[in-house]
Amino acid sequence: MTTPLRLGIAGLGTVGVGIVRIVQKHGDLLAARAGRPIEIVAVSARSKSKNRDVDLSGYAWEDDPVSLAARADIDVFVEVMGGHEGPAKDATEAAIAAGKDVVSANKALLAVHGQALAEAAEDAGRVIRFEAAVAGGIPVVKALTEGLAGNDITRVMGVMNGSCNYILTRMQDAGLSYEAVFDEANQLGYLEADPELDVGGIDAGHKLALLSSIAFGTQVDFDGVELEGIGSVTIEDINQAADMGYKIKLLGVAQLTGRGLEQRMSPCLVPDTSPLGQLEGGTNMVVLEGDAVNQIVLRGPGAGEGPTASAVMGDVMDIARGFRISTFGQPAGTLRKARPARAAVPAPYYLRMQLLDKPGALAKIAHALGEAGISIDRMRQYGHDDTSAPVLIVTHKTTRSALDEAIAAFGSTGVVAGDPVAIRIEAV
Amino acid sequence: MTTPLRLGIAGLGTVGVGIVRIVQKHGDLLAARAGRPIEIVAVSARSKSKNRDVDLSGYAWEDDPVSLAARADIDVFVEVMGGHEGPAKDATEAAIAAGKDVVSANKALLAVHGQALAEAAEDAGRVIRFEAAVAGGIPVVKALTEGLAGNDITRVMGVMNGSCNYILTRMQDAGLSYEAVFDEANQLGYLEADPELDVGGIDAGHKLALLSSIAFGTQVDFDGVELEGIGSVTIEDINQAADMGYKIKLLGVAQLTGRGLEQRMSPCLVPDTSPLGQLEGGTNMVVLEGDAVNQIVLRGPGAGEGPTASAVMGDVMDIARGFRISTFGQPAGTLRKARPARAAVPAPYYLRMQLLDKPGALAKIAHALGEAGISIDRMRQYGHDDTSAPVLIVTHKTTRSALDEAIAAFGSTGVVAGDPVAIRIEAV
Repeated sequence: MTTPLRLGIAGLGTVGVGIVRIVQKHGDLLAARAGRPIEIVAVSARSKSKNRDVDLSGYAWEDDPVSLAARADIDVFVEVMGGHEGPAKDATEAAIAAGKDVVSANKALLAVHGQALAEAAEDAGRVIRFEAAVAGGIPVVKALTEGLAGNDITRVMGVMNGSCNYILTRMQDAGLSYEAVFDEANQLGYLEADPELDVGGIDAGHKLALLSSIAFGTQVDFDGVELEGIGSVTIEDINQAADMGYKIKLLGVAQLTGRGLEQRMSPCLVPDTSPLGQLEGGTNMVVLEGDAVNQIVLRGPGAGEGPTASAVMGDVMDIARGFRISTFGQPAGTLRKARPARAAVPAPYYLRMQLLDKPGALAKIAHALGEAGISIDRMRQYGHDDTSAPVLIVTHKTTRSALDEAIAAFGSTGVVAGDPVAIRIEAV
Repeated sequence: MTTPLRLGIAGLGTVGVGIVRIVQKHGDLLAARAGRPIEIVAVSARSKSKNRDVDLSGYAWEDDPVSLAARADIDVFVEVMGGHEGPAKDATEAAIAAGKDVVSANKALLAVHGQALAEAAEDAGRVIRFEAAVAGGIPVVKALTEGLAGNDITRVMGVMNGSCNYILTRMQDAGLSYEAVFDEANQLGYLEADPELDVGGIDAGHKLALLSSIAFGTQVDFDGVELEGIGSVTIEDINQAADMGYKIKLLGVAQLTGRGLEQRMSPCLVPDTSPLGQLEGGTNMVVLEGDAVNQIVLRGPGAGEGPTASAVMGDVMDIARGFRISTFGQPAGTLRKARPARAAVPAPYYLRMQLLDKPGALAKIAHALGEAGISIDRMRQYGHDDTSAPVLIVTHKTTRSALDEAIAAFGSTGVVAGDPVAIRIEAV
């Protein structure tokens, strides 16, 4: 097979330009490895005149990605535009309809419309690959779908939003508040135009939903992801956690239990000596657990021109080499509908609240926990101002629903000021 | 494609039994993922009567793996016997000659005969896959060959022998000598029947040679691996290294430089805060660096029934899914002959020697280093017995050949007792 594989690239931001650079720089290397040349035929982006510091003169230009997707002279539609509706969706659908394979970096699109797109691709005999949509340069989709294909996957975990991990580690290192570091990150351009996509856990939640589908053979279900952002994490929580030997991470966890599919993306305490606990700055880490392999941990850059383009090219090379696989690792029609289960797996929790300086206050809290069947592992009360004192409790293993019951009961004790903060302690 | 993929398994030790267990336990899961059933048709091992705690009654038995390999009713020959000559080699060759695909866990066989086998497989239109031969359950061959196929690979590193890492971390944790921990490990059954395969770095060297070939498009060249085992590492070296913020690891490093292909498997100092430095016990870790992806780190179990069988099944599933790729990632005929380069990339070195208590002794050593163009970063002299004192030097970056020149010159100074120990400090 020495006919070239012809790409049409939609989106010439950082990632798109990165792909162009790789194809231009490594033509011989790619051809040697794939057994055929990889060629860019056409590109599309919003502005043709923007200087991108890369030579696009050899490629046809399309203003409309939908037109690009349908061109007769491309084999693979590479979608690196982003957005889960509008042009990205239209163009991806058009590409499949026109009989093109699709390589996508678009986590939002696939997390929301993945099942429909997978079915459409299957009907058309085309593949959709999306390594770049999850954890940037780390080949985690490949590891899970192919490398661990002999395993019953028991748990998938990951720190998959570099901006959040940057904020949390920077808070700890510099002793700064969430607000201060958020502003800093925003000014440095580390956050999405809508920062809530990052700090609200949505971007990472999209990634987790994609991994869950592959891991458990379920239809991708982003709505089933319990989302909790990092906005409520204070520098005090980080310091308290550190005192107890933990770090706070925005951690995604997916597990299939008897009660259903649990998908959480939320701040968690993890042991500071664990690989996840030691992860600093913008790096991503994914932990895959299976019944045969036990546990593997993958670490690498979660974003950026080179790493994301590397992931896109991995998919392109697979297609060039003739490797065709179902979007989520098995035929779309065989993926079961997930039954969402909220935090079904019990865990210890870290609880922080402001306790009013009233007689018997602590006893009332302890009683409310006891009534909910929650026992206390550790408790600390700190020096206080005139009217209230911070109290920190680490519970023994409990369910989130029992905890919510106890927290609701705190309200009627009349001794808690404001809302208690509860952070799960994840065994990693 | 719903015709079953039929396996013949040669070798029913830990790994072979692990494969049988997965196929028996996960039949539906494998079929759903592959789109076709995976079936074991025949098996072979030295003893038919041995109790393996697994039901083999549904499979044909072959005493001779060569006969198994040639059976008309198998599609894939799974070789989990081991050994780079004899039955494993004969049977693998027979399988290819009989038109079977091969999945192998045999690092020695492939490191020594990989090029010839890859050529034979290519001529016969068959594939050889060997994920299980490198770093156990970690899908590193897949990550490198496929996931990073868009990268010019700049460096591959790894701790790929769990027994050596166990010995080195146990020495440090328990403050024990190499000899004591070696005996302990041997009694626990952690070492190969010929322990030199482990502690001499041979097993890990085989793995490095396989990764090098994929990374750099060169013919696998185990003879080109500079091998140095861990036998000369003392508890004093480990403690000194720890004092300076380093751990000692049996580290494989492969780099293609202007001077040729550098492949080293030797004890190295790595920063104790790095992922490699933090690796404890029998776990493996591989670091892959490419021009686009920068660096990814993969960590997981390097051996054992489940992890190794998981890796074998990953390859089997790829074949079942119709994915066919050249043994070392590109056609065997296009792999260049490697030109071995010895430690071409300069590095700082840790030097330990026993200095005789003579006037001007230290000056003579410093002079010899200076003559070889080596400058000293740090030096320590310790309390000494009557006649000699341990001296520890950390050099600035130098080449191994300059260092060897200096060490040779030490001999003629008459102030050094015994052989100096030199350990490279690897930037990770």
